[in-house]
Amino acid sequence: MQVYLDNNATTMVDPLVVEAMLPFFSERYGNPNSLHKFGSSVHPDIMKAIDQVYTAINASDNDDVVFTSCATESNNWVLQSVFNDHIVGGEKKHIITTEVEHPSVLSTCKWLEEQGVQVTYLPVNEQGTVEAHTVKSFITEKTALVSVMWASNETGMINPIKEIGEICKEAGVLFHTDAVQAVGKIPVDLQDVHVDFLSFSAHKFHGPKGIGGLYIKDSQPLSPLLHGGEQMGGRRSGTLNVPYIVGMGKAMELATTNIEEKMAAIRAKRDRLEDAILELSDTFTVGDRENRTPNTILISIRGVEGEGMLWDLNNGQIGASTGSACASEDLEANTVMLAIGADNELAHTGIRLSLSRFTTDEEIDYTINHFKEAVARLRAISSSFAKQAPTPGGEVQECELH
Amino acid sequence: MQVYLDNNATTMVDPLVVEAMLPFFSERYGNPNSLHKFGSSVHPDIMKAIDQVYTAINASDNDDVVFTSCATESNNWVLQSVFNDHIVGGEKKHIITTEVEHPSVLSTCKWLEEQGVQVTYLPVNEQGTVEAHTVKSFITEKTALVSVMWASNETGMINPIKEIGEICKEAGVLFHTDAVQAVGKIPVDLQDVHVDFLSFSAHKFHGPKGIGGLYIKDSQPLSPLLHGGEQMGGRRSGTLNVPYIVGMGKAMELATTNIEEKMAAIRAKRDRLEDAILELSDTFTVGDRENRTPNTILISIRGVEGEGMLWDLNNGQIGASTGSACASEDLEANTVMLAIGADNELAHTGIRLSLSRFTTDEEIDYTINHFKEAVARLRAISSSFAKQAPTPGGEVQECELH
Repeated sequence: MQVYLDNNATTMVDPLVVEAMLPFFSERYGNPNSLHKFGSSVHPDIMKAIDQVYTAINASDNDDVVFTSCATESNNWVLQSVFNDHIVGGEKKHIITTEVEHPSVLSTCKWLEEQGVQVTYLPVNEQGTVEAHTVKSFITEKTALVSVMWASNETGMINPIKEIGEICKEAGVLFHTDAVQAVGKIPVDLQDVHVDFLSFSAHKFHGPKGIGGLYIKDSQPLSPLLHGGEQMGGRRSGTLNVPYIVGMGKAMELATTNIEEKMAAIRAKRDRLEDAILELSDTFTVGDRENRTPNTILISIRGVEGEGMLWDLNNGQIGASTGSACASEDLEANTVMLAIGADNELAHTGIRLSLSRFTTDEEIDYTINHFKEAVARLRAISSSFAKQAPTPGGEVQECELH
Repeated sequence: MQVYLDNNATTMVDPLVVEAMLPFFSERYGNPNSLHKFGSSVHPDIMKAIDQVYTAINASDNDDVVFTSCATESNNWVLQSVFNDHIVGGEKKHIITTEVEHPSVLSTCKWLEEQGVQVTYLPVNEQGTVEAHTVKSFITEKTALVSVMWASNETGMINPIKEIGEICKEAGVLFHTDAVQAVGKIPVDLQDVHVDFLSFSAHKFHGPKGIGGLYIKDSQPLSPLLHGGEQMGGRRSGTLNVPYIVGMGKAMELATTNIEEKMAAIRAKRDRLEDAILELSDTFTVGDRENRTPNTILISIRGVEGEGMLWDLNNGQIGASTGSACASEDLEANTVMLAIGADNELAHTGIRLSLSRFTTDEEIDYTINHFKEAVARLRAISSSFAKQAPTPGGEVQECELH
């Protein structure tokens, strides 16, 4: 059996999405910007995909949704263009973000600091979330933008986006959220929350890798990152990736239709897996389940290095992660775990399991068995764990890192 | 019969390319940056695609080829990063390009002018090409970059890239070429020509829309346009679009293997079509055939508006263009035709026909018949043409715009 539990890194493309995309490669391949039928005949399909996206996040007709190549592009676009539009030559010079953002936000902020921008990296609490009042306390009249992720890729913890949005609106500060781990996993209703810019990426919700989007409230100005032709109303140049646009629309529709039911089904499997893992001694998971995306567990197992666990799981045909895939090649301490206050040893033991709607009960059973055996194997050869007094046998460890 | 003659705008994805991509959507969907088998098992496929790309353009092991979302991104990246790396805070302040570049170069240059960069837009000669000595005459010690397209999207005319490369090398100036219309159409040998940066796009050679690349000679520094994770050695962040990378590699291999034979076959069909069209009176094509990409004809028919012709062809199920697709929504005079010295009336009559290796002899026959009938139809209702003295019947118009 093969078990893929790394759905926060990327997902399987839903076969229904592949089916929707296929005609647009070799049959209906016209460039939608062309005036002939080969091009214009795909307009209704583009429009349908746009409708699917607007519906999925409840955008209004006044808002813009622009297709990009990925959320990394969307995040770079917002940060770089807010810099160019509002900071260069202006009165503003300050951006607020968090310590636990995706590298595409953090690296761009580091680059902006080199350009003279003042960036505040907010800490997260022991739950791994940023608190709205903390955001509020750092906003000054120099603040151009607040950028806070909707949900964490590593912990699944959900930030108080509605409260932060209200604070930004009241303060007249632009608000961007990297919603890559939220869209398709939990309800995202842009009539209910105030967000100026929202990034998303299709491959996190069973669409293809290499397409994402940026929601722009009230179609407000934002200078382009990619200059060029008049595609997307001049906001994002480059020939439209028709198959992937169609695919992303379909994937968003599939992910967000009856999302509460889908969440409940994934949550049930996740909770069963989490309960079973917490039966092991000295084992912790990060953050309240109720305030987490329903597919995610970040586990810490004292005495078991994350990388060792990863390889043991891998040998058992189980795909997991020590953190985000973007950082997977760095065998470093999990930065989120450090941020939430874990000690350095524990921060090296993080293992993330992330489920999808395609995860089956049989896969969960298989994973529970393998996981427990793996912990026993790795603790048996662990120098650090052997030195500690064993926890009384049979005690259920419900304590979480908070 | 449907005839697609707009291959300079975009192409059909080769069914062999689709076949190569398909397993990577729903079966082999791992993120290559993940450490588990789902991710690492696709590494050989990525490596194969990289090999196919290096071979296709004859890049050396010392060079970098970075996957991007399209040539628009590649072009923006070079121009914006050369600005950030060599102009901001430095001694250089000048970029040389041409009047007839793709909008992704021209718009970015316009934006750079707003940032204080001095940009020279070189004119083209009556053949529609830029002359190497013109480039040389404008280089000063302030020049940071020369950016000249390898072949024109609108005319197919090929610039003297080898000579320009030598001039730039000698002058110590960086040289970028937008080779979107060259790669896969004509031989591109990066051991034979000196180019620092070269942009290409898969959908111009029967690969998918939404992926392209940037060749970087000797892996020289170029700050990223998209900051983020460590993908592509930190040069271009964002989860790798595995299916499209595999597809682009395959498409490049298919397009460039035995390219001389493929060129000859396309050229034969193109020349037959062009000869037949030139039998019509007062009809011109732009540029020497020998110095043109073998698939392209830009035609001017006195008395026939380009848009009218486009719609008549469209009614006959023939897809053509009045210029580049990026500008197709603007019913303006063809800028390239103006640049090469056509009068304003003639510049409104441009029709571009661009073939591919999938174009058949039957499609050419059909197009010749329809095209001739369309010209007769449109001239019969043309006020401007009726005012002119008719050209003596039967005279073959071999005169080209030079």
